[in-house]
Amino acid sequence: MLNLSLSSTQSGYIIQNPKSPFILNPLLSSPPTIKFINPSSRKLSLKCQYSDQQQRPDASSYSQPREDAPKVFIGHSIYKGKAALTVEPRPPEFAPLDSGAFKLTKEGFVLLQFAPSAGVRQYDWSRKQVFSLSVTEIGSIISLGAKDSCEFFHDPFKGKSDEGRVRKVLKVEPLPDGSGHFFNLSVQNKLINMDESIYIPVTKAEFAILVSAFNFVVPYLLGWHTFVNSIKPQDSTRLSNGNPRSGADLEWSR
Amino acid sequence: MLNLSLSSTQSGYIIQNPKSPFILNPLLSSPPTIKFINPSSRKLSLKCQYSDQQQRPDASSYSQPREDAPKVFIGHSIYKGKAALTVEPRPPEFAPLDSGAFKLTKEGFVLLQFAPSAGVRQYDWSRKQVFSLSVTEIGSIISLGAKDSCEFFHDPFKGKSDEGRVRKVLKVEPLPDGSGHFFNLSVQNKLINMDESIYIPVTKAEFAILVSAFNFVVPYLLGWHTFVNSIKPQDSTRLSNGNPRSGADLEWSR
Amino acid sequence: MLNLSLSSTQSGYIIQNPKSPFILNPLLSSPPTIKFINPSSRKLSLKCQYSDQQQRPDASSYSQPREDAPKVFIGHSIYKGKAALTVEPRPPEFAPLDSGAFKLTKEGFVLLQFAPSAGVRQYDWSRKQVFSLSVTEIGSIISLGAKDSCEFFHDPFKGKSDEGRVRKVLKVEPLPDGSGHFFNLSVQNKLINMDESIYIPVTKAEFAILVSAFNFVVPYLLGWHTFVNSIKPQDSTRLSNGNPRSGADLEWSR
Amino acid sequence: MLNLSLSSTQSGYIIQNPKSPFILNPLLSSPPTIKFINPSSRKLSLKCQYSDQQQRPDASSYSQPREDAPKVFIGHSIYKGKAALTVEPRPPEFAPLDSGAFKLTKEGFVLLQFAPSAGVRQYDWSRKQVFSLSVTEIGSIISLGAKDSCEFFHDPFKGKSDEGRVRKVLKVEPLPDGSGHFFNLSVQNKLINMDESIYIPVTKAEFAILVSAFNFVVPYLLGWHTFVNSIKPQDSTRLSNGNPRSGADLEWSR
Repeated sequence: MLNLSLSSTQSGYIIQNPKSPFILNPLLSSPPTIKFINPSSRKLSLKCQYSDQQQRPDASSYSQPREDAPKVFIGHSIYKGKAALTVEPRPPEFAPLDSGAFKLTKEGFVLLQFAPSAGVRQYDWSRKQVFSLSVTEIGSIISLGAKDSCEFFHDPFKGKSDEGRVRKVLKVEPLPDGSGHFFNLSVQNKLINMDESIYIPVTKAEFAILVSAFNFVVPYLLGWHTFVNSIKPQDSTRLSNGNPRSGADLEWSR
Repeated sequence: MLNLSLSSTQSGYIIQNPKSPFILNPLLSSPPTIKFINPSSRKLSLKCQYSDQQQRPDASSYSQPREDAPKVFIGHSIYKGKAALTVEPRPPEFAPLDSGAFKLTKEGFVLLQFAPSAGVRQYDWSRKQVFSLSVTEIGSIISLGAKDSCEFFHDPFKGKSDEGRVRKVLKVEPLPDGSGHFFNLSVQNKLINMDESIYIPVTKAEFAILVSAFNFVVPYLLGWHTFVNSIKPQDSTRLSNGNPRSGADLEWSR
Repeated sequence: MLNLSLSSTQSGYIIQNPKSPFILNPLLSSPPTIKFINPSSRKLSLKCQYSDQQQRPDASSYSQPREDAPKVFIGHSIYKGKAALTVEPRPPEFAPLDSGAFKLTKEGFVLLQFAPSAGVRQYDWSRKQVFSLSVTEIGSIISLGAKDSCEFFHDPFKGKSDEGRVRKVLKVEPLPDGSGHFFNLSVQNKLINMDESIYIPVTKAEFAILVSAFNFVVPYLLGWHTFVNSIKPQDSTRLSNGNPRSGADLEWSR
Repeated sequence: MLNLSLSSTQSGYIIQNPKSPFILNPLLSSPPTIKFINPSSRKLSLKCQYSDQQQRPDASSYSQPREDAPKVFIGHSIYKGKAALTVEPRPPEFAPLDSGAFKLTKEGFVLLQFAPSAGVRQYDWSRKQVFSLSVTEIGSIISLGAKDSCEFFHDPFKGKSDEGRVRKVLKVEPLPDGSGHFFNLSVQNKLINMDESIYIPVTKAEFAILVSAFNFVVPYLLGWHTFVNSIKPQDSTRLSNGNPRSGADLEWSR
């Protein structure tokens, strides 16, 4: 494995993010550089959905590295004067059935991370606010006309004892000059007496990329790609002989 | 195989579905939880199109599990006050030719399952009605304008002795306030003297997700992904040398 | 290999097609059944681009069947009163370079096959006319508005001694009632003194499926999927160390 | 490896390109033929981003050729009277992390290459001008309405000592007759006292193919396909047991 000695380029404005082992340090509008600040890597990795994957006990599957796709961090970022927005898909979850099959138990989503600026082309990711777009909310975004707005409310503690203590509102509204939309995330957190709002304008072109990426990723968030993988001419033949579908599904016998 | 002990969380409203081994029990708008009520699991699994796959006699292909994609149940559901709608693609069918090639013998489809509500956020899947959208009917849906309607008629017994005894009508019409479309499935079954109609409103955002998922899945329902898999630069070379296409297809020699 | 004994169901209207080893015999609006009428299979297979694939001398690649995707015939058909239209993608062609890389030498296309009807739900594939849609012509189709028309001219012998002897015109025009488009293929063949025109109406829904399938297949006709297959995080790392791109492409150093 | 003896068809107008080992020689509107003029093939190959791939020191991965996708040159070209335009995607770049994961360090782009004509259906690729479309600029193109324009400025030396010495402007504007858009690339290079402008009209159909290809390729330029490859039902299960997401991301517990 090559080591690009990333940790040595510590120039720029870096603020440790209490919620995440990642620190984004975008300088001069270059792509985000992700750094691990990892005093006790074992402990931190437990907080991270993805890094866990690399340390999973069942490491046998890594003995043949070509079969496994490595984990890749692929947040797509939009940098503006007052804030930055990073957009990243998160996978659906599955559970095994006794039959050996699996079922989708939770659809994937797209995580939006907003960070306020902290100087020229510097962003304070320690003050980031996050918002998870569900599949249906993604549907609102991808079907948004040039003059349309949409607004989503989230309560991270809904159904729990702290319900109503944290309130998040994401608004997507057209820019006054018609050049795009702005994304505005407001977070009111009564638990820590915090009330913040981060605003970022997104141009028509940047929005088109979000829509293209969202359209691409929706079927995977739904798990429908697993359907695709399962269609093999050979299996179909076997299936249709041993187990005629007409017995299972009368509706489609037209 | 991990056992998530799903069957122990038996809270909520559960109605055994006589047609299917699955029972959906959505509580508090959480994603659907699929439970197997499995008094005699061997017997029930025979009724299920997919689970058969795991029990096929030609089990040799399972000796190298990484090559095989497992079966995954991936119905995408929309839950509303009066009804729920689950949407799930079903694969095309193929038959082998003497040459070792295959041909597509039946295009895939999308199965719509409508269940009436049976209380707050509870749905009675034993009374579900199904409708199989053909590829062309999917074409109607994905090209439906905000103010357009479409309507499909199915007779599951068309061409059989019971032709005309069961009549299904699916209507997709714009909601009066322009906020989306409703899906209305009416089933008139003279065999069991049943006449039912299930109605579910689908927002613009939910509809956008259906369209995105349908657009994704159409090429696979047509089997066109097998074309894609067959394009390899190496093979093409061999082909174009030994068997010049110009001899086979004069049309394209411009 | 299972034998579905397809050749025994010889009912229906079958006409041997002099140009192709395939005979389509669609009955009662069922999906097309492809039959091999193969008196001298070795000879006929040489005329067929696809069947050659199964008999290629380098058969070693078939010893591990899971690695190879089998050939699949996946023509998508639209059946109407007066004619049928089958649409099928054909792969691009590649040539090897000394470096071991390949280059795309010919973009793929979509083959349209028109057959006139020969009775109720029967089509005379011996009289079929074919038209190969180039990538740009596909671009015309997928960008066609509801009220737009397009028209393509092909001369299969362009640049050859018989140039101008065969003239094909494909017109796609909106139906008068706005319910879709018609496809009209006219072939004037002075070599055999033939002048034929086949017309088939395509509904808005059917057209949407064509557009969806064409949009899906375009990147593969361009060979761009090979680009996709080549993007691997591991390789990228190796590449960017040993061979910095900044030296190769100054343009993108902003 | 087959040798198609491409270098023997040296007819046509060929001009050695000082910047690239490739010479395009399109005759009679046939697809581009790429030739290697290779007096010292070892040396030239070092200048080429892709050919390096074939000579990488870690050749072990080539011992099992089926696992590796070969490099393929897949520029899509549009040929017109005054100029030709070739469009080709370039991959994103990744860097390894200590954890064994990777991160995307640079998004991919689409390289546009413009060559002026040098006679009937002949193009002078030695005078080509290139422009690299970033992901956001691609977003402008794919969201461009029939009557919209867009314009991009690049300075290849931005942030370097020669900043401002080379100035590139790409304009995409609607054709006066509404039949498509023209692409106009102007390059002002004070370093070599050069000022050139290449103009090529792109029909609506050709533009639709560019948009279709760009839409296809955007998720790969963002590296989002690596997300897709990482979604496996089996892994998800392991993950959700050992490392409950609810601890990592409270936002999404609604």
